[in-house]
Amino acid sequence: MTGRRSFWAWGLEAEEPTNEQRQQAAARLAARYGVPVEAPPVPRIEQVQLRPPRIAPPEALAEICTTDTHERAAHHYGKSFRDIVRAFRCEFPNPPDVVAFPRTEAEVVAVLEWCAQVNAAAVPYGGGSSVVGGVEPPAGDRPVVSIDLRELNRVLEVDPVSRAARIQAGVLGPALEEQLRPHGLTLRHFPQSFEWSSLGGWIATRSGGHYATNHTHIDDFVESVRMVTPKGVWESRRLPGSGAGPSPDRLVIGSEGTLGIITEAWMRLQARPRFRASAGMLFPTWEAGYEAARRVVQAKLWPANCRLLDPAEAEAAAGGDGVHALLILGFESAEVPQGPYLQEAVRIARECGGEVDAAGIRIADGTDDADAGRQGAVGAWRNAFIRAPYQRNLTAGTGVVGDTFETAITWDRWPEFDRVIREHVGAAIAAASGGSLTCRFTHVYPDGPAPYYTFQVLGKPGGELETWAAIKQAASDAVIAGGGTITHHHAVGRDHMPWYRQQRPPLFAEALRAVKAALDPQGLLNPGILVD
Amino acid sequence: MTGRRSFWAWGLEAEEPTNEQRQQAAARLAARYGVPVEAPPVPRIEQVQLRPPRIAPPEALAEICTTDTHERAAHHYGKSFRDIVRAFRCEFPNPPDVVAFPRTEAEVVAVLEWCAQVNAAAVPYGGGSSVVGGVEPPAGDRPVVSIDLRELNRVLEVDPVSRAARIQAGVLGPALEEQLRPHGLTLRHFPQSFEWSSLGGWIATRSGGHYATNHTHIDDFVESVRMVTPKGVWESRRLPGSGAGPSPDRLVIGSEGTLGIITEAWMRLQARPRFRASAGMLFPTWEAGYEAARRVVQAKLWPANCRLLDPAEAEAAAGGDGVHALLILGFESAEVPQGPYLQEAVRIARECGGEVDAAGIRIADGTDDADAGRQGAVGAWRNAFIRAPYQRNLTAGTGVVGDTFETAITWDRWPEFDRVIREHVGAAIAAASGGSLTCRFTHVYPDGPAPYYTFQVLGKPGGELETWAAIKQAASDAVIAGGGTITHHHAVGRDHMPWYRQQRPPLFAEALRAVKAALDPQGLLNPGILVD
Repeated sequence: MTGRRSFWAWGLEAEEPTNEQRQQAAARLAARYGVPVEAPPVPRIEQVQLRPPRIAPPEALAEICTTDTHERAAHHYGKSFRDIVRAFRCEFPNPPDVVAFPRTEAEVVAVLEWCAQVNAAAVPYGGGSSVVGGVEPPAGDRPVVSIDLRELNRVLEVDPVSRAARIQAGVLGPALEEQLRPHGLTLRHFPQSFEWSSLGGWIATRSGGHYATNHTHIDDFVESVRMVTPKGVWESRRLPGSGAGPSPDRLVIGSEGTLGIITEAWMRLQARPRFRASAGMLFPTWEAGYEAARRVVQAKLWPANCRLLDPAEAEAAAGGDGVHALLILGFESAEVPQGPYLQEAVRIARECGGEVDAAGIRIADGTDDADAGRQGAVGAWRNAFIRAPYQRNLTAGTGVVGDTFETAITWDRWPEFDRVIREHVGAAIAAASGGSLTCRFTHVYPDGPAPYYTFQVLGKPGGELETWAAIKQAASDAVIAGGGTITHHHAVGRDHMPWYRQQRPPLFAEALRAVKAALDPQGLLNPGILVD
Repeated sequence: MTGRRSFWAWGLEAEEPTNEQRQQAAARLAARYGVPVEAPPVPRIEQVQLRPPRIAPPEALAEICTTDTHERAAHHYGKSFRDIVRAFRCEFPNPPDVVAFPRTEAEVVAVLEWCAQVNAAAVPYGGGSSVVGGVEPPAGDRPVVSIDLRELNRVLEVDPVSRAARIQAGVLGPALEEQLRPHGLTLRHFPQSFEWSSLGGWIATRSGGHYATNHTHIDDFVESVRMVTPKGVWESRRLPGSGAGPSPDRLVIGSEGTLGIITEAWMRLQARPRFRASAGMLFPTWEAGYEAARRVVQAKLWPANCRLLDPAEAEAAAGGDGVHALLILGFESAEVPQGPYLQEAVRIARECGGEVDAAGIRIADGTDDADAGRQGAVGAWRNAFIRAPYQRNLTAGTGVVGDTFETAITWDRWPEFDRVIREHVGAAIAAASGGSLTCRFTHVYPDGPAPYYTFQVLGKPGGELETWAAIKQAASDAVIAGGGTITHHHAVGRDHMPWYRQQRPPLFAEALRAVKAALDPQGLLNPGILVD
């Protein structure tokens, strides 16, 4: 897929919805909510007026920098609900002054040096899919350079024996997998943002990926990392494991562009799976479903997929009856037939009341184009998963407010946590004229689930951001009060800072501030994120 | 096992060898090396003269502090080869001035406050089993307080649903497992130092444990941690997973007592295994063995045990023929029969030339006292493993120099790395009159092994430390030059600092220095370790 990115929508300009498609979506919403819904016409870049750039790139960098309106607008926001609403409205009050596209690490260094000279804030930009305000410039008088790493998009070196590769940080998911495929290897990191997120972004935000159990976050796949900081280049050794002091990599992972710009990493890879087994199991209640998920993960069968959908979510995403919860189990391997593993998981899940008939169990061994896990309930869910971000393009500006929030919590606190979340967020939704709140587990750990909530309400057109803010506040307050994390895999960004401040140990905040001062004394990198 | 710790030997005073036992050991050495070997008599605490304490505890702390000679001598060193030689010789030039035994976290705070008042260095002490100079006081005029956490030895809270427990950091391995057993749970962290190492020590040093694959280090079992620092208490949330900024826990894990004193942690636990399967497989060559280990771990069968012994090690530890390498495979689970997993691993290993007959495959399903994995080659190796630290008590002062060093390296570099290590360390051993150098994999990762080398030479009695230093230098230089880590799970301590300085990214050193300055501005905690 090539072409120019949309300046407001998820994906390419060529993929923007037509006004007719948006009107059809509005009609569906009207039918659902029983009120008239209008879909305003899609915005055009010609409508966008930006503040003139406050700085101009030096001649040496002119070739890789732009002040083009489209690029500045496209780099103003990530892709959260709030971002798309604001971009759809052509509200771009605080765009980056310059967008830079360094083609080499040396050019990354040069851009950062220029930022230091003019005291500009430097905002690293990978795929631009942040849903937490992670690529949005800080407000204020300081000029801002958005540093888009898309040109650093190559797999530099492949080590097939260790199953690892040295990869440039700006590569997007599809281009990465395309380069690994000839080697029979895959990173298998498939966040929902896969199409429009980068390796460096995944590392900087502790992205959660394909694997629902065991090694869920990108963290575990980083073998070493290389990062440009204002004080020089940071590079760790390639090591399968180490016990030499606190892990240097774990300080980079999750640093959200505040300590440096990740330029490349050695990543641990997988052989491409040839054996697959999957099942979609129905449970009489949500409670029975999460008991099954708990027992399967505690048995350490380590399914690649162990995603539990509550009854409402199962209905919406996979054609469920609105009563039963759905547990999607998937196993995969390059070397080992997976049927027996699946059968064990099914056995455990049945003990919790799960049901699946023979047709619901798919085992495909030894073929590259195995269709197990790509059809039926599993397939329906997967398609919905990948397409979901495009949905917002259809409904922006209609008054629909829809978003997700995700967390993690230990099993002992989970049932009450879920009850309180639904109570508080439900109240905020009710106050906003009503709507839906559903939940699934995206990842499951032996000590607790990572629940992922989705809400949708139809608010007043033009009032979407206020409605969103009220619900987001209720959700975030409840998550933090209940002992959860403000984010399991969406990162902190600007949006989660108020709750991150409550969550982190205060002394860790001081430690991180000290690290920031040591590496970035001028405070160039993403000021206001993570470090106050 | 109760009683007073030996002031020089591994274990309790009551377990010290008799002079007769040591003479028998000397005779065995003499037979092996073909030269006379003498075993000097074991030292007695009455022979020990210590520098008078340079500080006295304040009255409020008198009850939990001691300046007793035995305790000060016992807290002077860890339990490295070098430590036991020095202690055996009653060389205690730089003992802690006071040993404190806080019984509560409040007393830990009080002791640290006192250290701040008198500007004493504070050395946290868990089980005292460091083999890298991790509990040894810094040299110099500054007074030193060794803070022994043995009284913080309780499991405070058990969460059976999440399989987790809140545990005080000073608990030693056996006492921890004893308290977990009634709950049907186990941490299953069994480093070789298990009897004489503590939870807090494991966390502070990134200890490597029972599991040879997947989650090998204590790191992955830490759900949250609580640490007393000079600036206050640091405590993270109990979370199964999180993506909120860099992990606070990962900065504590491996901090080796330089940032604070870990007082308790929520740890992820296991249900006690009921299903076991194991096999000891012979390979015609070392190379065939490590190819099998690589393929088994890359197949992600995640055996609990996947330890490969080179031919010499297999001979010494498990009665091998000196030609074949031995791969010990072990699977265990609380919920799932393990036979099929083992069979898959055996199938893969056979493709690499591995051999095992039916009797060598042990499968014991569904009983608590399953004997699989406790007999045969597996059992012989395990017994030798747990008893190994006591061996040094027998040979201290005889001129024998024996030690181990461990690292990790990616598979692509491993064969050449092993060759170079054996060449350089072998040369140092030859220069010291000759001896043995053997290797095993203690842990195996998809991207590389963690090789663990053992050497022994018979040097000049009285010259042990110089002989040791020459070999250690050759080994450490070769490890770092070859791209390995200076330690996979023994930590850095004082002994590894010269090579840790070469290994860590220089900017990470600056970051850690900044963190240290923020949390411990007076530099009270373990000065000279990790941070220059």
